[in-house]
Amino acid sequence: MHTTPLYRQLADYYLSAIRAGTLATGDRMPSVRKLMQNHAVSLSTALQMCRYLEAEGWLEARPRSGYFVRQPRRIRLAPASEPRPATMIDPAQFVGIHERVSAIIAQGQRPVRINLARATGAPELYPHQQLRQLASSLLRQHPYLLTKAISPGGNRELKATLAKRSLDAGISTSAEEITITHGCIEALNLALRAVAHAGDIIAVESPTFYGLLQVLESLGMKALEIPTSPSTGISLEALELAMQTYDNIKAVVVVPHLQNPLGSIMPDDHKQKLVRLCEARQIPLIEDDSYSALASSDRIPTAAKHWDHTGNVIYCASLHKVLAPGLRIGWMLAGRWQARVNMFKYAQTRYNEELSQLIVATFMQSSNYDRHLRKLRATLSAQREQMAEAIATYFPEGTRLTVPDGGVSVWVEMPEQVSSKAVFEAALQKDILISPGLLYSNSNRFNHFLRLNCGTRYSDGLDSALRTLGKIILEARDATQSAAA
Amino acid sequence: MHTTPLYRQLADYYLSAIRAGTLATGDRMPSVRKLMQNHAVSLSTALQMCRYLEAEGWLEARPRSGYFVRQPRRIRLAPASEPRPATMIDPAQFVGIHERVSAIIAQGQRPVRINLARATGAPELYPHQQLRQLASSLLRQHPYLLTKAISPGGNRELKATLAKRSLDAGISTSAEEITITHGCIEALNLALRAVAHAGDIIAVESPTFYGLLQVLESLGMKALEIPTSPSTGISLEALELAMQTYDNIKAVVVVPHLQNPLGSIMPDDHKQKLVRLCEARQIPLIEDDSYSALASSDRIPTAAKHWDHTGNVIYCASLHKVLAPGLRIGWMLAGRWQARVNMFKYAQTRYNEELSQLIVATFMQSSNYDRHLRKLRATLSAQREQMAEAIATYFPEGTRLTVPDGGVSVWVEMPEQVSSKAVFEAALQKDILISPGLLYSNSNRFNHFLRLNCGTRYSDGLDSALRTLGKIILEARDATQSAAA
Ligand SMILES: Cc1ncc(COP(=O)(O)O)c(C=O)c1O
Ligand SMILES: Cc1ncc(COP(=O)(O)O)c(C=O)c1O
Repeated sequence: MHTTPLYRQLADYYLSAIRAGTLATGDRMPSVRKLMQNHAVSLSTALQMCRYLEAEGWLEARPRSGYFVRQPRRIRLAPASEPRPATMIDPAQFVGIHERVSAIIAQGQRPVRINLARATGAPELYPHQQLRQLASSLLRQHPYLLTKAISPGGNRELKATLAKRSLDAGISTSAEEITITHGCIEALNLALRAVAHAGDIIAVESPTFYGLLQVLESLGMKALEIPTSPSTGISLEALELAMQTYDNIKAVVVVPHLQNPLGSIMPDDHKQKLVRLCEARQIPLIEDDSYSALASSDRIPTAAKHWDHTGNVIYCASLHKVLAPGLRIGWMLAGRWQARVNMFKYAQTRYNEELSQLIVATFMQSSNYDRHLRKLRATLSAQREQMAEAIATYFPEGTRLTVPDGGVSVWVEMPEQVSSKAVFEAALQKDILISPGLLYSNSNRFNHFLRLNCGTRYSDGLDSALRTLGKIILEARDATQSAAA
Repeated sequence: MHTTPLYRQLADYYLSAIRAGTLATGDRMPSVRKLMQNHAVSLSTALQMCRYLEAEGWLEARPRSGYFVRQPRRIRLAPASEPRPATMIDPAQFVGIHERVSAIIAQGQRPVRINLARATGAPELYPHQQLRQLASSLLRQHPYLLTKAISPGGNRELKATLAKRSLDAGISTSAEEITITHGCIEALNLALRAVAHAGDIIAVESPTFYGLLQVLESLGMKALEIPTSPSTGISLEALELAMQTYDNIKAVVVVPHLQNPLGSIMPDDHKQKLVRLCEARQIPLIEDDSYSALASSDRIPTAAKHWDHTGNVIYCASLHKVLAPGLRIGWMLAGRWQARVNMFKYAQTRYNEELSQLIVATFMQSSNYDRHLRKLRATLSAQREQMAEAIATYFPEGTRLTVPDGGVSVWVEMPEQVSSKAVFEAALQKDILISPGLLYSNSNRFNHFLRLNCGTRYSDGLDSALRTLGKIILEARDATQSAAA
């Protein structure tokens, strides 16, 4: 379905040459004219390829001399630390995340010059014009859309479209099995309410996005934080150990693809094992797949739900990050708990408004959706690389980073003694908003991390903000060092 | 703010003459020409007045002879029975309403010819064209509305507009105190979650709308049903008795204006007493004011919240019945629990989409909203009267009805031995959907009631459906009588 564009094929060709050392740092690239001749491509393809490799940090343009090979600085960044599998975080620590989060969020609610705290792309990265036109034309087609009672059970067309699109993630389902929700967050609420009660323990990844910790706290449930690798996701050994240690784990919640904040992607065999493990212990698995369409691979990663044959996996997803951050369209496949989930959905918020559902359904039925995703992935990929490059350039020694294979953010590990809270506050003074690591756990374990958004086009303003951030971190490190001395 | 239109003033004038007997049944009304001369009004005002009184059942047009006074048949209908104040319904009966409701709802989900089960007006009764145009123009004004991250805390303009409009209900508040929700139903969920936990007892009106009973069941809370009068609302004596009997009542939920299903409106001194009673016992009062803008009076009734000076009243409302059944815009003033409610709202569904909020805010800022409400009230009033007239004509002896002073439905008391479930099923056979009384309590006490929607223009089809319903009820009554014999 997704064919790689010509310039990317060409870029991959030269990238392997660079990686193999065939083209070394400082070497001159073939001229654009030569590229055109050698590969029988157009001028624009040749240029696009060079600019792409430049944006990714592998080429450098020298005025009037052409492109030269370089090593991106980010290569020098060590990957983020792997967790120690045996160190679960005690569920007794579950209270208070909301207070912590809301104190941070409250400070960040005024408009800032540079907002690096978001978990979505910039508005221009989404098909705003097409969606807008669809809205107006749907309103013309359905004159009573805003004033007629909403038809029960979620829009049928949207559910059918989502069912069809799920095939790409290896999920075979039908419209009838889908529940439309207000974003993935409502889906997670419904899933948790369906399978667990106040006081129950829920196993989650650590770090995990604070939204989930807040949901658990608001429902009176306790998060048991399971060590999670920046590259392969939740540690299955640690999870198994947890299941042996605690006998009241009532659900496991994972984000298998582009985990927030790590960006990790679970290998297929891990997902399969996870599904089996939960099934064997009769513990429902809640899969949050909000980001998978943003994975850089040409294929949408296969959902854990693919390996579920007993309805034990509750699959939750959303179009909020992928298609339209201004719309609150989420959805779920609640498996064995569908009737219960539908009951809670009806009692909690009734059905979603029809217009948004129709806009999304109509857009997703066309190839415009595929085109949008391809473009979005390519843009985000370049922006992640530029961000990583800037971090390697400006942040102090000891900074570690695993650049994820997709998504809208990077998770930066600062030198251990630096507090993300202090960095958050100092950055806000300079009108820069970041998301501090201490939000991503009920413990303080991730206080020396930052999550930075890569959803905005790289600009001089952004570059200088990152330079400023680097200085702030350096000062914070030196201050604690001299305090310790 | 709301001035009574001329034709209504004139109608009131003649109506008091009819009620006083000055104009008796069979008397001929002054001719239209005479009306114009006597009252110095236009032809259209004189005609409008006559047609209005005709629609209300007080005049009858005879071809070529003019209008004649009559007694509407509905005058012969006895008012609905008053409850016995001491008979609360045991909260142990709280389980199972959802199953009951969903069995009924599932049967009624296919399209039917005549739908009398709704709690909203027909789509044409709302300003569909104006709202649609607003939607398109707002999308032009804000090109990134659908793709930019939603600004936190609910749309500021909408909140300011709602705060201003609340003055009409005697509530003095500010944008900062308002929480925007997905309909009143989410507001009720948030209010209940903020003040109570699973296992707690919540005092509610009896009968009450099943949505509330479902919310309570879904949250594991127990409904204590308090007898409620079709004319004055919840019995304060019964409520006080309940508070003495049960020491774990954690909230009282009332719909003071146009209660669903009764249509009752609490007198001001009852509301005030209720607020004091709850305050004295430190029990939060949750006021659901979804319908008050549909009251026939020229003024919006004063909210119970008006008498609240300690933040003990949580006020919940919605524009779903009043302005746009296709939109899910509700809102609340959570008083002392605002921080907690906002936390739950964020964790549960995040903020509402911006477009709907802006459409509503813009419309409510203009006098179009006042015009819409005036027209809607007049239309509904005429339709309620026509419905009552048909019920008096077609339903068997022993039928009782209190026609409410506003709203979209009437609550019909059938002869005691008739089961609303049987009537529901027989009516569905004839492609008529009604809302059976057994949905409005966890007990079977209201099984001989029906709620009928008056939101659709009276038509031959509707008339014949009501005739059919009358027959069904008669047959059901006779069947049980002969079974008993
Ligand atoms: C992993 C994850 N799940 C769920 C959500 C919430 O999704 P939505 O905006 O669709 O409610 C987020 C948003 O940050 C997220 O990162
Ligand atoms: C009394 C009452 N409250 C609340 C609701 C739900 O309101 P909304 O549609 O705004 O969620 C209804 C709907 O039937 C109702 O009758």
